[in-house]
Amino acid sequence: MGNNSEKIDMEYFTKRRSIRNFSNKEIDQNLLNSILLEACKAPTCGNMQLYSVIVTRGESEKKTLSSFHFNQPATNAPVLLTICADFNRFTRWCELRNADAGYDNFLSFTSAFADAMIYAQQITTIAELNGLGTCYLGTVIYNAPEIAALLELPELVVPVACLAIGWPEEEGVETERLPLQAIVHEERYRKDSDEEILKLFKEKEEYGPNRGFVEENNKENLARVFAEVRYPRAMNEEFSAKLLAWLRPTFLK
Amino acid sequence: MGNNSEKIDMEYFTKRRSIRNFSNKEIDQNLLNSILLEACKAPTCGNMQLYSVIVTRGESEKKTLSSFHFNQPATNAPVLLTICADFNRFTRWCELRNADAGYDNFLSFTSAFADAMIYAQQITTIAELNGLGTCYLGTVIYNAPEIAALLELPELVVPVACLAIGWPEEEGVETERLPLQAIVHEERYRKDSDEEILKLFKEKEEYGPNRGFVEENNKENLARVFAEVRYPRAMNEEFSAKLLAWLRPTFLK
Repeated sequence: MGNNSEKIDMEYFTKRRSIRNFSNKEIDQNLLNSILLEACKAPTCGNMQLYSVIVTRGESEKKTLSSFHFNQPATNAPVLLTICADFNRFTRWCELRNADAGYDNFLSFTSAFADAMIYAQQITTIAELNGLGTCYLGTVIYNAPEIAALLELPELVVPVACLAIGWPEEEGVETERLPLQAIVHEERYRKDSDEEILKLFKEKEEYGPNRGFVEENNKENLARVFAEVRYPRAMNEEFSAKLLAWLRPTFLK
Repeated sequence: MGNNSEKIDMEYFTKRRSIRNFSNKEIDQNLLNSILLEACKAPTCGNMQLYSVIVTRGESEKKTLSSFHFNQPATNAPVLLTICADFNRFTRWCELRNADAGYDNFLSFTSAFADAMIYAQQITTIAELNGLGTCYLGTVIYNAPEIAALLELPELVVPVACLAIGWPEEEGVETERLPLQAIVHEERYRKDSDEEILKLFKEKEEYGPNRGFVEENNKENLARVFAEVRYPRAMNEEFSAKLLAWLRPTFLK
């Protein structure tokens, strides 16, 4: 990669932001391939590399794929990377070598899922350190069956992450985080009282832009914006049932 | 963090190796907390931060936890981090705010799983750039129910990654990777012929240490070492059934 000899600033990790608005400038094919190759040195389960990535660049292909991501703004990126948990390649290799590939089960799904996410995050970090902007499209799992059909994914290949990637046309929005105490538990999971839970979310609830969301959505509080507007039960349960039905003949049989 | 103003080398990404042998030197609490805090700026689903981490440092606690990881060598690390997909904290907050938290379903599990893996890999990268060594213990999911009981994880908290972390006492073993062509597909998943699949695995099969594994294990080929010794069907199916049964009342109901 061009800047392999360059140094990067450790402050990157505290300053990074997701990018949802990209310039028209293409990502050079060599740069993208270097990133995808370097990311392969990320840890992987038993060195099996249980992941694949589908690169979507074509205008019409991007348009169709974006529709399965509800055409969210970040889909204006020049490239969409669909990162898949993939036990197909490994299974085919085993079968060609007369080895009994027992990977059509839920445990193996979790191994491949973990591998794919580690790979996705390594791509994110390397891409951002090269000046590119990225945004995860969590919607990939909502329409995994449709996306799998579009990208012609074979059995035992499940799209689990999608990264919109391109040259940033914005600085990105700074987002707040919970205090570290909310995340970290020493030796055992802490039994927080109700008051303690509310205290952990206090700063988030009082954060200016979050108060704005509550007002815009005409809700009583921030939790209701999440539970009733952004990630409501009915939607979760509908997509959940679809996902389970689709996985049943392969990873969930 | 101490070296926040320091620069790091992009070559890190191609040179990194997992570490399984650690010195006795402790990890300073402030350093560890800085890493865990900085990693929180990694992308997260809707900024919900659907993860928690349990820090295991105590000798007796580490010993018990290690037994669920089959006492693999890397458990000699001074710290084990168990990173969990966590919809409990968010659900409790919603309930305290009279919001209907509909996150006891499989779709929500995949969101939290993805979040936790992104967080785990961000911890890995920041820790390694600070000179620490890390190793994922993929066994965390094999004994997730037992580990959850030990760490007193409440409902909707699932351990999905475990990182052994400490100061390296070895350089780590270099491991080969598949050629990039095996991983990357343009626009659609490529329909490789049997010959093409075997070609993708050729270098791996011929790699010296892998030929050594085949010999040591008295197997016909490398695929059989994986399918019959390292990740055999019966083991996968046994742990899979246990995991599914455990998840059924919460994320799989």
